[in-house]
Amino acid sequence: MTVYPAKQHFAATVGHLGADSGVILVHGSETLMHPDSDTEYEFHQNSNFYYLSGVAEPGFAAAYDISTRTAILFVPHVSADEAVWTGVPPSLDEYRAAHGFDAAHYTKDIDAVVGALKPSVVYTLPENASACAAFSLAPVEKLRLAVHEARVYKDDCEIEIMRRANQISSAAHVTLMHEAREGMNEAELRGRFVGLALAQGCSYEAYGSIVARGRNAAVLHYTKNNMKLDNSSDVVLVDAGGTYGNYASDITRTWPVGPRFTDNARAIYAIVLDMQKAVIDACAPHKQWEDMHALAQRVAAEGLLRLGVLTGDLESILAHHVVGYFMPHGIGHLIGIDTHDVGGYPPGTERINKPGLRYLRARREMLPRMVFTVEPGLYFVDAILAEAQATPTVAQHIDFDVVKRYHSVGGVRIEDNIVITDSGNDNLTSKCPKEIADVEALRSGAYNA
Amino acid sequence: MTVYPAKQHFAATVGHLGADSGVILVHGSETLMHPDSDTEYEFHQNSNFYYLSGVAEPGFAAAYDISTRTAILFVPHVSADEAVWTGVPPSLDEYRAAHGFDAAHYTKDIDAVVGALKPSVVYTLPENASACAAFSLAPVEKLRLAVHEARVYKDDCEIEIMRRANQISSAAHVTLMHEAREGMNEAELRGRFVGLALAQGCSYEAYGSIVARGRNAAVLHYTKNNMKLDNSSDVVLVDAGGTYGNYASDITRTWPVGPRFTDNARAIYAIVLDMQKAVIDACAPHKQWEDMHALAQRVAAEGLLRLGVLTGDLESILAHHVVGYFMPHGIGHLIGIDTHDVGGYPPGTERINKPGLRYLRARREMLPRMVFTVEPGLYFVDAILAEAQATPTVAQHIDFDVVKRYHSVGGVRIEDNIVITDSGNDNLTSKCPKEIADVEALRSGAYNA
Repeated sequence: MTVYPAKQHFAATVGHLGADSGVILVHGSETLMHPDSDTEYEFHQNSNFYYLSGVAEPGFAAAYDISTRTAILFVPHVSADEAVWTGVPPSLDEYRAAHGFDAAHYTKDIDAVVGALKPSVVYTLPENASACAAFSLAPVEKLRLAVHEARVYKDDCEIEIMRRANQISSAAHVTLMHEAREGMNEAELRGRFVGLALAQGCSYEAYGSIVARGRNAAVLHYTKNNMKLDNSSDVVLVDAGGTYGNYASDITRTWPVGPRFTDNARAIYAIVLDMQKAVIDACAPHKQWEDMHALAQRVAAEGLLRLGVLTGDLESILAHHVVGYFMPHGIGHLIGIDTHDVGGYPPGTERINKPGLRYLRARREMLPRMVFTVEPGLYFVDAILAEAQATPTVAQHIDFDVVKRYHSVGGVRIEDNIVITDSGNDNLTSKCPKEIADVEALRSGAYNA
Repeated sequence: MTVYPAKQHFAATVGHLGADSGVILVHGSETLMHPDSDTEYEFHQNSNFYYLSGVAEPGFAAAYDISTRTAILFVPHVSADEAVWTGVPPSLDEYRAAHGFDAAHYTKDIDAVVGALKPSVVYTLPENASACAAFSLAPVEKLRLAVHEARVYKDDCEIEIMRRANQISSAAHVTLMHEAREGMNEAELRGRFVGLALAQGCSYEAYGSIVARGRNAAVLHYTKNNMKLDNSSDVVLVDAGGTYGNYASDITRTWPVGPRFTDNARAIYAIVLDMQKAVIDACAPHKQWEDMHALAQRVAAEGLLRLGVLTGDLESILAHHVVGYFMPHGIGHLIGIDTHDVGGYPPGTERINKPGLRYLRARREMLPRMVFTVEPGLYFVDAILAEAQATPTVAQHIDFDVVKRYHSVGGVRIEDNIVITDSGNDNLTSKCPKEIADVEALRSGAYNA
């Protein structure tokens, strides 16, 4: 079994912290109860703590002595009475070895063990400040930013975990495309997806799945997932990914309820696919993420001009951010332990307050070992179209009669997860079909089974 | 569509509160974020608030003017910007009508609307006290105990919701019995269960599912659910239920990995089935819940005496709580909005500190409209057997050589959900097979498919 490189993650964090002494001390999440109830919230480990410990259980802590490079794991003690209910836990040394630490103690001894290191300063996270009150603390934002920056660059172990998360989630998407039929409910598809992800070892959905048929896909954060696939002309947008080994996957596929796309749906889908492939082809070290967003907008504008949805001069369309009214979200985001992973806006980088761009979740130079989602989409959202119609510089470039023709498509999004490599990128989602012929072959298969 | 009887629940609560004036004001749960992340915890509504409102969304509140019997719903306002992402919400009046309230306002107006009622006193819950600080509050335990007592008695609407929760969960158990084969992983079974529950409209697992094969069933709170079904002689204990319409189901079935029980597993299973059927036959109005526990212990003692696991005099075995070392938990608990529902120990009732009994989750007279789980089990837990061996009054009644013969069975539990009726009880879980012949027919079918 590969040991999760927690100790290396402490070292990487120290690199961004720029310190040569002191101790890092971080606490994991505790079990959280629902109010006035003995029911627990499903346990999710604090993401920063997972990165520094590889521990997915509640009640742990971890320390790292910067000058001696010693990593110390703190384990909650399980009483004999509790062990009757939960089973006999591993020993301290078994925990230490399993997580690649240099030493292990019980959490009741944190203050004594860390105190004995006589740290000049203790670095901790904002969410752990009160638990570390016994020590002289550095400003808590220091460690937070250093861990965030370290988490931006995935090592081989992390990439392999994310590859597996994507394999499991891709296979579940394929099963949905292969099994869904007109008359099913969105809830059945979401249930099938979650069931397959859990069955293959995922801990939970990486985020609230979206299964949106027809016009529901125009509700960008659609979470009801409870309507019937009652029209074979509709498309279904499925945005779902499992968390495996505490790393997220985030995949979207859009496919017809019937065996084939309608001509209108195919036309929109083809543009989104062009946008996505253009961006993935362009993703490479030293390029800027916001330029990927601009590239997707340009490809979209060209496609929507061909359809007649947009009219006029391409450069004027781009200058007036017209595409932002059809793709109101960003082209993608960093992904890792969190679905929307940390580090998208390094200190000093600001958001751009323009349609489509204000929701861009990252602005930075792409570098090897960053993992991004690439998720262009085109939507026909009534409220946004009304805003476009009321904005003359935008409305001049939109043919609202042609828009009506595509309105029932609702929305189309295609989303993959890619790792930036030395020469370009590696698509972790490559096994999840998105070419029109492949999607239609799967959908036809659903009706010929 | 049936309207959830929230207003009647306010009235029932007032009955237990014994007040004829004042205002009840309660707040629902808010969305909860993971620390240093934009990921939400899966939303679960506060159980007391759900009972009084029927609202399963975050950010709501509800008030009830006791003297005028007026129920007022408070709805969070959704801005036009937010509606672009989440869809256009229902109007105030649509919310009011959907939940059967007399009036609806936005939450920003709570203090003004409740203040205008000039309440002599405001009753709220401990978890809402700070949100109601603008008013003169009654001691918060008063409303809490009144809501708890009201929640103990389920009305027809609640019983029908629980019947559906049990139907969905029972069908998922049947699918597992029909599909599981040697070589599968516990995670596959848990994933299949959750997927089926969600597909049929459940919101989430009512509690962390337990899928425990072989000796894992002797870990009473086994939650890893990640081992292979690698021995056809093992049994699998599956304790899983979905929450439907905010009401829990809680069902356990135990069945062989292979097509048939081994003789040893069948012997233990038969005793547990006898225990369960004896208790269900006995459950009726005006009987005491702790007597059901005692009945299960007596049937267990008789069965274990026949097997030779226990020796000596039956009454001495019962007097020394010997069965508590094989069934360390209580016979069952109230169930409703919460899996372990409120009201099990009315004020003034204490727990009994004896093996097996100290974990009994209810001590009260059974009355019509109470819903209980009936969940006897027998387990061979090493730590508990060691304690028994070290306790002479207990050890004298156990033949530890015979225990060894049954040790590999791990544990068996059978759990149904029953409603106390005027004349006896109604088993909500009756469609989930538990007779040995029915279980073996399903399991054989899995290998002959």
